[in-house]
Amino acid sequence: MTATTQTAELLEALKERKTPALARAISLVENARDGYEELLSAIHPHVGRAFRVGITGPPGAGKSTLVERLIHAYRAKDLTVAVIAVDPTSPFSGGALLGDRIRMESVTLDPGVFIRSMATRGALGGLATTTREVCDVVDAFGFDRVIVETVGVGQSELEIAATADAAVLVLVPDSGDEVQVLKAGVMEIADIFVINKADRPGADKLRQEIEIMLGLREGNALRYVGTHHRGRESAQAARREEPKRWEPPVLATVATTGQGVPTLIEAVEAYAERTKANGDLDARRRARLERHTREVVERSLRQMVWQDGAGEAALAQGLERVFKGTESPYELARRIVNGLTGGSAHGG
Amino acid sequence: MTATTQTAELLEALKERKTPALARAISLVENARDGYEELLSAIHPHVGRAFRVGITGPPGAGKSTLVERLIHAYRAKDLTVAVIAVDPTSPFSGGALLGDRIRMESVTLDPGVFIRSMATRGALGGLATTTREVCDVVDAFGFDRVIVETVGVGQSELEIAATADAAVLVLVPDSGDEVQVLKAGVMEIADIFVINKADRPGADKLRQEIEIMLGLREGNALRYVGTHHRGRESAQAARREEPKRWEPPVLATVATTGQGVPTLIEAVEAYAERTKANGDLDARRRARLERHTREVVERSLRQMVWQDGAGEAALAQGLERVFKGTESPYELARRIVNGLTGGSAHGG
Repeated sequence: MTATTQTAELLEALKERKTPALARAISLVENARDGYEELLSAIHPHVGRAFRVGITGPPGAGKSTLVERLIHAYRAKDLTVAVIAVDPTSPFSGGALLGDRIRMESVTLDPGVFIRSMATRGALGGLATTTREVCDVVDAFGFDRVIVETVGVGQSELEIAATADAAVLVLVPDSGDEVQVLKAGVMEIADIFVINKADRPGADKLRQEIEIMLGLREGNALRYVGTHHRGRESAQAARREEPKRWEPPVLATVATTGQGVPTLIEAVEAYAERTKANGDLDARRRARLERHTREVVERSLRQMVWQDGAGEAALAQGLERVFKGTESPYELARRIVNGLTGGSAHGG
Repeated sequence: MTATTQTAELLEALKERKTPALARAISLVENARDGYEELLSAIHPHVGRAFRVGITGPPGAGKSTLVERLIHAYRAKDLTVAVIAVDPTSPFSGGALLGDRIRMESVTLDPGVFIRSMATRGALGGLATTTREVCDVVDAFGFDRVIVETVGVGQSELEIAATADAAVLVLVPDSGDEVQVLKAGVMEIADIFVINKADRPGADKLRQEIEIMLGLREGNALRYVGTHHRGRESAQAARREEPKRWEPPVLATVATTGQGVPTLIEAVEAYAERTKANGDLDARRRARLERHTREVVERSLRQMVWQDGAGEAALAQGLERVFKGTESPYELARRIVNGLTGGSAHGG
């Protein structure tokens, strides 16, 4: 059976909303097997109905428990939920979130819930690209909400959080490094802040720190406010003049008891409604599609250069010279690129 | 003046070991300005004399203070040192380590010391690629040791640490998340462990945790040891049979007082000697050159597709259709790639 026939059958089964087909389609995409781009291309017109929530934060912040709570809360509202759990900090081990997956099995008998751990880094695409594509699959399948859970607050995690429609940053009191963790990049990407384990000492201090940094962020945007003759009142006036500005809420939760979870859901839904209404969601999705197209182009080029054999052969042959210093990596790279494009390559 | 003439002049000034030329060469490389690959290609035969030490760990572990101590210790041995400080977790802000740079100025009047913060992500190359290239420049310039300092323990940080000849992981007691931080990937990449702030309570506990995980790592490698009739003694015997195996030391330091720094230097130098002697260093550098060549190829391809104008134009024109769902990102990407390679693209 050809890849095309298999893909056509898989598409048919997806239309009939068969869960095993969903799992198979995700595996196809995750492992970049023959026909995966064909499948993604075919589902593209059906992508965009689901609202995607990215949840990130340092290890130990209780994200998985919180996600479990969110699942139950969404189900209580009769909304279906897919969870894609990603751990980019484990490049060597794989299967990082297996424990979470097992723990979450309590909810997976419900056909309105789908949970999937991304155990591998996409072969030639980056993890953020592959995560986006897996989200497209569950989105097209018809889930109302897609939760993308990532562990960590590094660059890779931020990139994955940025693939969602809303980014939730989960922090915990007393982690010792609050201020350090709250780096510019993380703060700028979060639409909603959650202080989980908020019954622990230090929750208020953390909230204050977040709010100070949010104030700074706002201060940066409204730079003219900082002068002597403009006080707090003027700042408030300036804010009133910009009704469209979203002020990221700082919410307190205790995931283990469920405390604060309804408020979190409300905040997510309010953000979804607001960004749908004011065009921000469209802008974000357009930017995401642009980025995704760029990455698909670059992935195709990598595929062409490394998977036809000639590139690998030239690399293997030239590497000894590079190691001895008689050829530079740049000269060897030029030869490999010229082999692909027929000699049109020019240096940087 | 053409880029080629400028590059030739810069190369001449580098040969004469003029520090301003070094700073200019790094800026050229860091910003991927015209002629940077030409420069890197020309210095390639002179790269490989310096031993490169990657130092990584969570924020607040005291890495910068430790690096300052290492600089002084190396200078006392009459070895010259270049430090490249990278913060991959600040993709949005830039200039992340400026504070450290200022603080370190005490040592920079010494011409045997060079300190540079990487404030930007490489434009089209990734940060790890650009870091490697900046290291090549200071290596070719003639420094004896190159220290690459990164903040964090995420995937990007690991990739940067992996660009060095030896990877040092700095941890601190009482950080609350020790076990969480000690993920497989981080543990596997470290050649030397440092417990900094070792005068704090919890240092022994952290050491035990690291050693247990190191035992597990070794256990994985020597899988046959785990059976019932082979006890601890057999494991030790097995270890004796493999004299080439490096057992990563777990060292204690107090960077603020300098305690433990001589032992750390000794461990780094011992690792350098050992890997030079047994071929591990050559193997590591060969792998690094292979990886680097791959990345230069991919960067060239990205450059070709996005910097000639046609790719960007096709993307801008097609994006509206992609957003409306009438064309998929994959179809648009195919058209862009075909434009570059003359129609030879085939789907994944």
